[in-house]
Amino acid sequence: MISRFRHAALIGKYQARGMRPLLEEIAHLLTRRGLEVSVEIETAHNTGLAGYPALTPDELGQTCDIAIVVGGDGTMLGIARTLARYGVPMVGVNQGRLGFITDIPVAQVLHALKAIVAGDYEEEHRAMLEGGVLRDGESIYEAVAMNDVVLRSGTTSMVELRVEVDDQFVANFRADGLIISSPTGSTAYALSAGGPILHPGVAGWLIVPIAPHMLSNRPIVVPDNGRISVEIVSAREPSVNFDMQSLASLLIGDRITVRRSDHRVRFLHPRGWNYYATLRRKLHWNEGALPGDGGQ
Amino acid sequence: MISRFRHAALIGKYQARGMRPLLEEIAHLLTRRGLEVSVEIETAHNTGLAGYPALTPDELGQTCDIAIVVGGDGTMLGIARTLARYGVPMVGVNQGRLGFITDIPVAQVLHALKAIVAGDYEEEHRAMLEGGVLRDGESIYEAVAMNDVVLRSGTTSMVELRVEVDDQFVANFRADGLIISSPTGSTAYALSAGGPILHPGVAGWLIVPIAPHMLSNRPIVVPDNGRISVEIVSAREPSVNFDMQSLASLLIGDRITVRRSDHRVRFLHPRGWNYYATLRRKLHWNEGALPGDGGQ
Amino acid sequence: MISRFRHAALIGKYQARGMRPLLEEIAHLLTRRGLEVSVEIETAHNTGLAGYPALTPDELGQTCDIAIVVGGDGTMLGIARTLARYGVPMVGVNQGRLGFITDIPVAQVLHALKAIVAGDYEEEHRAMLEGGVLRDGESIYEAVAMNDVVLRSGTTSMVELRVEVDDQFVANFRADGLIISSPTGSTAYALSAGGPILHPGVAGWLIVPIAPHMLSNRPIVVPDNGRISVEIVSAREPSVNFDMQSLASLLIGDRITVRRSDHRVRFLHPRGWNYYATLRRKLHWNEGALPGDGGQ
Amino acid sequence: MISRFRHAALIGKYQARGMRPLLEEIAHLLTRRGLEVSVEIETAHNTGLAGYPALTPDELGQTCDIAIVVGGDGTMLGIARTLARYGVPMVGVNQGRLGFITDIPVAQVLHALKAIVAGDYEEEHRAMLEGGVLRDGESIYEAVAMNDVVLRSGTTSMVELRVEVDDQFVANFRADGLIISSPTGSTAYALSAGGPILHPGVAGWLIVPIAPHMLSNRPIVVPDNGRISVEIVSAREPSVNFDMQSLASLLIGDRITVRRSDHRVRFLHPRGWNYYATLRRKLHWNEGALPGDGGQ
Repeated sequence: MISRFRHAALIGKYQARGMRPLLEEIAHLLTRRGLEVSVEIETAHNTGLAGYPALTPDELGQTCDIAIVVGGDGTMLGIARTLARYGVPMVGVNQGRLGFITDIPVAQVLHALKAIVAGDYEEEHRAMLEGGVLRDGESIYEAVAMNDVVLRSGTTSMVELRVEVDDQFVANFRADGLIISSPTGSTAYALSAGGPILHPGVAGWLIVPIAPHMLSNRPIVVPDNGRISVEIVSAREPSVNFDMQSLASLLIGDRITVRRSDHRVRFLHPRGWNYYATLRRKLHWNEGALPGDGGQ
Repeated sequence: MISRFRHAALIGKYQARGMRPLLEEIAHLLTRRGLEVSVEIETAHNTGLAGYPALTPDELGQTCDIAIVVGGDGTMLGIARTLARYGVPMVGVNQGRLGFITDIPVAQVLHALKAIVAGDYEEEHRAMLEGGVLRDGESIYEAVAMNDVVLRSGTTSMVELRVEVDDQFVANFRADGLIISSPTGSTAYALSAGGPILHPGVAGWLIVPIAPHMLSNRPIVVPDNGRISVEIVSAREPSVNFDMQSLASLLIGDRITVRRSDHRVRFLHPRGWNYYATLRRKLHWNEGALPGDGGQ
Repeated sequence: MISRFRHAALIGKYQARGMRPLLEEIAHLLTRRGLEVSVEIETAHNTGLAGYPALTPDELGQTCDIAIVVGGDGTMLGIARTLARYGVPMVGVNQGRLGFITDIPVAQVLHALKAIVAGDYEEEHRAMLEGGVLRDGESIYEAVAMNDVVLRSGTTSMVELRVEVDDQFVANFRADGLIISSPTGSTAYALSAGGPILHPGVAGWLIVPIAPHMLSNRPIVVPDNGRISVEIVSAREPSVNFDMQSLASLLIGDRITVRRSDHRVRFLHPRGWNYYATLRRKLHWNEGALPGDGGQ
Repeated sequence: MISRFRHAALIGKYQARGMRPLLEEIAHLLTRRGLEVSVEIETAHNTGLAGYPALTPDELGQTCDIAIVVGGDGTMLGIARTLARYGVPMVGVNQGRLGFITDIPVAQVLHALKAIVAGDYEEEHRAMLEGGVLRDGESIYEAVAMNDVVLRSGTTSMVELRVEVDDQFVANFRADGLIISSPTGSTAYALSAGGPILHPGVAGWLIVPIAPHMLSNRPIVVPDNGRISVEIVSAREPSVNFDMQSLASLLIGDRITVRRSDHRVRFLHPRGWNYYATLRRKLHWNEGALPGDGGQ
């Protein structure tokens, strides 16, 4: 059977050593199916996997038409922003506990990849946040986030943030911080801070204050086609994070803007994949029943 | 100045007596501007307002091209479902504390209406829930809701509900009840039950369990272009409410389905209207600061 | 070895049939250890367990100095109020998933009971709520609750309740209902409604509104040595539950009062028992970690 | 009328300038009533208030039998720990928005103080947290807190904390941080983090994780007569705060212990003072009603 894909990228977990046998097995399978294989350069160095071109993430994006990411959600988070720029679809393989976006267990990886490269998969898209920091009207930082943009003060102090959407004033938040999250990020940090779950098919961002100093605050979901602007009104040593990329030297008056990226993340899942099944498994929705249920 | 509208419907609060002078003033303004005026039939009876055709809500929908609703959010909730079927845009006037969707205070009504009938307004659309009850595969009830569809047991007993979206199993909820809410309803009952706020521009429904018997439950926002199905697995005297329309005689095994209505509610707001300003005013976001803020 | 106890009560789960072999095994163990054994009268009827006096709960309270309760938390909830009046300590054995207060699995029951009747146990006390309903100043109902007192309206309607503690006005709650919970009940219905966990050693009651119509509401913990009074300001078909004992015919103006009972529930646990271990097991505190944890 | 008190301490807000006229007025009133008056030394310097002995907080504690604190809750928080050691009762006067524990408005201060020094007041006691940091079994820090003990990592990173109460393992919390709060602190930071309100008469501490990485986490109230121990399992640059006293250089393996202080804060309130009235006023319990209430 002919592969629908031509050239696969292989990306492994950061600093993972013992991954080489698994990556080799995957590479063999892919070459046997007629794909060229390139390996992400850090992955090649860390695992000693040789015999395949070792490319940077950007080179992988320019060259490949499918990427196999072996690690956890964090590994995917690290590479997806870059590959999304080139429209490369990604398959997530998880060595440990299954993640939200790395949903193929190692034991099933060969079986699953055979089907996927043959064109038998479910494709799913995820919107990304694109943002920047404006100081005195000039852009001093730009970044893309798959999960969230998080604003905070340094240790144990409050921020005051003025939030606008499409130049309409929303609220002044006084809180430990503020999270602007994509649907993908709604099951990450935003969930810890009390946010709802957003299905990836919902075209919205989630705005969640962290430990808000106002009882009547609630998470808000806003349309993702607008422009969110957050001004730092007061804070000590404020910082902003786009996923795990941190910018620490913010100043009072800086303005963080967030809009939808023109690029989307493309995930390929095994046929039959289901967002809600992932949700149930990750959130232990079968188990956490309260005492007394079925009591008597 | 010529009115953009031709025929206005006047609808007053349920069983409101003393409204006649206000409604007459509004009617005079509209006729002076060249509009025909018809009055909702119950409103005409209750207030004794004469001299204008008294029509049923459906007749108003067939005849009018603008509706002035004087009351509170509840009054609007009662009439909007019908008028939305005919695409009639609505203006909400509030006699008491301003509502979420009745946002013109009586003191400004004449001024605001002049501008609106002259074509100076902000138009806003709200999605509605359309649903039904299936028993043994046959439809036994159909209704439309602007705020929410609520499923519950009779007094003090738990329901178990199996929720699917587009035939994908989401979860079994064991709870006091379940709310499926539109963005409009997200600031009503769903908010009491712990849900987030959905901006009306978000194309999603909110699913919120009431007092869920599982600690790891969270509100979920799902795309509004799918089909939600809720099966009653166990309950005592279960009932379902579409806004305030109640169906009490549900049985185990009945299935409640919800999808987006083909009709949308059209609201006309005074120029400068702003969803977030309404939110701040209604949720007292300027006031509820915690103690210690600004302390020292 | 001589038993510290003289006469044991055996109580089984409501309408449980197949329990007879287990109950017989327990009864044999106890008689071999020198205890007299009596069986709760419904348990005797339902299981056909013969050869032991069949007594009512009150008679068991007057006669026995230890009770073995085999079932779930619900079974314990049903009998504990009565036995507490007589100061009889209770041992909870659970056939299914371990409960909060029935914490000995069937597989360990004989081993555990040997130690307990020999005097090797941890004794723990639980405060109970004692309450009543006042109409026009006269008591029309009195009851005791181990978990909670719950006030609600009939299906899908709001109650307004005026709460006082020691004649000090606390708040008017507009909500689906109100829960006044003991520490024991804090892990039952109150937890579903958003309440915190109260260690049984805390001398307090928990007041939790259900789906409150006010964003700034929060659960409150008040000292258990005071008198809580709740007046029904408005409601449709209001009812009150003391644990599972329901009084449905309440009227506007009725006043529900709650104070600490003079009686406490006495539990005997196997040596090494630990409240927090029970909490972790029941609330799945080892499992429900969020995605991304340990990611990368 | 003779004063019940002999010697009053006057304490003003930190760095407050314009307070001198008010403090002088209070001092005059007190001297006319036969009390000696001493002024806290920083207050004397900042306001230029002369003619009264200027004493350190400890000297005030040794000398005075009543203290008048003029500022906000923060001012009270700063001085109360010291004065509590000497058992000096405190009266809180607030220049701005009334606080939780500074509840006499400036406009009523003279009237209120007349009654209080004449012995007409309500006395109320608040438990304090006393804690320390153990490193390799040795105490490296000790402090007292009226509100809370807060553990956190440096900016945007998670802590893992192992909590024990009386040597019983409670849970491993993975969160942004952890708050151990007194009833007094339950209306401060703990409330932002989602905690319940503890009436000051409840002998318990509140344990609240901040943005916990586990959906099934809930605030816990534990008896205040035990010993809470928190071990830092993992964190980056962890720090602990006892109220506003910060210790930043914590290490993995350090253990923070918390127990009830032998000293209590004594507050004197005007006759008729009421904890719940303060709560309603501070939390805006009259205002935050949801839309739709009373609608129709």
